[in-house]
Amino acid sequence: MKTLNVNLGDKRSYPIHIGSDLLDGSDLLSPFLSKQVMIVSNTTVAPLYIDRVKSQLGERIVNTIILPDGEAYKTMDSAMQVFDTLLANQYSRNATLIALGGGVIGDLAGFAAACYQRGLPFIQVPTTLLAQVDSSVGGKTAVNHPRGKNMIGAFHQPRYVLIDTSVLKTLPDRELYAGIAEIIKYGLIRDLPFFEWLEANMERLLQRDEEALAYAVERSCINKAEVVGEDELETGVRAALNLGHTFGHAIETAMGYGVCLHGEAVAIGICQAADLSRRLGWLGDADVARIIKLIERARLPTTPPQTVDTDAFIEHMAVDKKNIDGNLRLVLLKRIGEATLPIPVDSALLKATLDWYGRGP
Amino acid sequence: MKTLNVNLGDKRSYPIHIGSDLLDGSDLLSPFLSKQVMIVSNTTVAPLYIDRVKSQLGERIVNTIILPDGEAYKTMDSAMQVFDTLLANQYSRNATLIALGGGVIGDLAGFAAACYQRGLPFIQVPTTLLAQVDSSVGGKTAVNHPRGKNMIGAFHQPRYVLIDTSVLKTLPDRELYAGIAEIIKYGLIRDLPFFEWLEANMERLLQRDEEALAYAVERSCINKAEVVGEDELETGVRAALNLGHTFGHAIETAMGYGVCLHGEAVAIGICQAADLSRRLGWLGDADVARIIKLIERARLPTTPPQTVDTDAFIEHMAVDKKNIDGNLRLVLLKRIGEATLPIPVDSALLKATLDWYGRGP
Repeated sequence: MKTLNVNLGDKRSYPIHIGSDLLDGSDLLSPFLSKQVMIVSNTTVAPLYIDRVKSQLGERIVNTIILPDGEAYKTMDSAMQVFDTLLANQYSRNATLIALGGGVIGDLAGFAAACYQRGLPFIQVPTTLLAQVDSSVGGKTAVNHPRGKNMIGAFHQPRYVLIDTSVLKTLPDRELYAGIAEIIKYGLIRDLPFFEWLEANMERLLQRDEEALAYAVERSCINKAEVVGEDELETGVRAALNLGHTFGHAIETAMGYGVCLHGEAVAIGICQAADLSRRLGWLGDADVARIIKLIERARLPTTPPQTVDTDAFIEHMAVDKKNIDGNLRLVLLKRIGEATLPIPVDSALLKATLDWYGRGP
Repeated sequence: MKTLNVNLGDKRSYPIHIGSDLLDGSDLLSPFLSKQVMIVSNTTVAPLYIDRVKSQLGERIVNTIILPDGEAYKTMDSAMQVFDTLLANQYSRNATLIALGGGVIGDLAGFAAACYQRGLPFIQVPTTLLAQVDSSVGGKTAVNHPRGKNMIGAFHQPRYVLIDTSVLKTLPDRELYAGIAEIIKYGLIRDLPFFEWLEANMERLLQRDEEALAYAVERSCINKAEVVGEDELETGVRAALNLGHTFGHAIETAMGYGVCLHGEAVAIGICQAADLSRRLGWLGDADVARIIKLIERARLPTTPPQTVDTDAFIEHMAVDKKNIDGNLRLVLLKRIGEATLPIPVDSALLKATLDWYGRGP
């Protein structure tokens, strides 16, 4: 087992434990828990893992909320279900909420934890690759609004992140690939050696080589923890973690949440951001080709569905958390391994990228 | 005009400006505003004051959300209306939200500001006495849940509080009295000289003597700002501000939000807390009588409606933000001018107080 630390000062720093079979028999959760514990999970993950988590909780009062699986359920209605259950069981402000699932469960449960009685302690137990390498770390919580992804949320840091890499064995292929999109992102924005490692080891990841997966998870978490420690509330460098996300969120919103997985949308968005970076003269054709090739090797899509045309992108990108005064700003690439801060982009260049991608196969 | 300061360190301290006719012609709001501004108000306050606020905003993009008046609308549905409108108008994360109204509008708009894109700047322009002396200062925001008052919320400090005491001229009598309940609270929990001043000046407040009202608002805000500066997130002394509120919230929830005004419920709750403090030997009979007399002079109720019986209190007090592991804790009085921290209370004593109040007139 390896332990990383998200450094947020005396009171709010927290550990990320990464290892195999951590859900079995370990007593890692115990010190963090209050008498009242609520586990939030979904219909896919709960049958596989919830009993293992419960077995660590001893004599505590444990209740569970099992939501349907999928991005379509990352809504205020689901958050209200969590509030209803907490109140029906008279949970106090010192109760602990455990998010057991992928990014949807982590974001949603984290948001509910942020708002219930103005803030409960919560613990992330991510069970998808995407959640393990990205969404479970850093305290961004949210639900979606029909007009925009993650538009209602809060910064609320977990007390603890428990990453059991063994659970990746049961992950569907498509979810595995989606997670790799965020892993590639770290290489692109700030870690060229990691990007090169991914070029050399992509097949091992796809074959679920345990050592390779554990390394990719750890290296991703190191990158994430560093960035979050530097800029918790995203007033600066943290925005780089959004590479490809403004395009990606537009795809997810336009198609309806859950049609395209978040990681798939981000993969497409990264290709679009790379293309725009090329039009600005920062990346060469060979750089863009190299990025697209790695994404393709991860079995991820590299072009948006034709139903999401230039107008749809423009409409949905108009609400993005990086925008200022309603004006679009994007994270782009200066080179492979270095991202820009969010910057305003010439609308003709943006349109050129969107049109190019919308030209059809 | 007087200016107080809520001291929360370099980045988050903010001013409270108190004066008459501040909404007219002053340029106090200007420096705090972004290009996009959203004013949240209600159907009672907006016709009276929204144009004055708008006239200060110059060439900015201003939209308004006018909600129905009353505690019954401090709901997640109302918050969703705010999110819908912000998104429909493509508001960015740097937009400013102005809460123009009483405690309901301030709490609700503040909560929406806390959660929209994970946090917008917002400004409090309180228009009721209760909001001016209490709820607009300190960053507690929330909506109600059918099972409990303020159960869903966030700590989110305003950038600025603008208190125009002239607006109190249009306040209905019942709202004036309700505000006085929170004013009396400050005297009871930490400011004996202020309690004595209230005993000497209650008639002036009821007659809306401008000087007396301005003094009461200022002295209340001084008390509130000191407590919040010491303990922003209510891990300690801030809980004293909840004197009477656990009883009061139970009354509000049991009766249905808005039947009893918050200040009225708090007035009753203070009497119940005083009675329980007497049973614990901290207050004498004369102290309790003195408290009840001042509350009666403020035209406030001192006993709960008979429909809210002991069982109803016990049920609704079981969810309170001061509880730990589901066990009730209450703020009580050591003497007039000094509150306890939240403490567990012997259930027989609590029942004695509740039964005594439930015995009928």
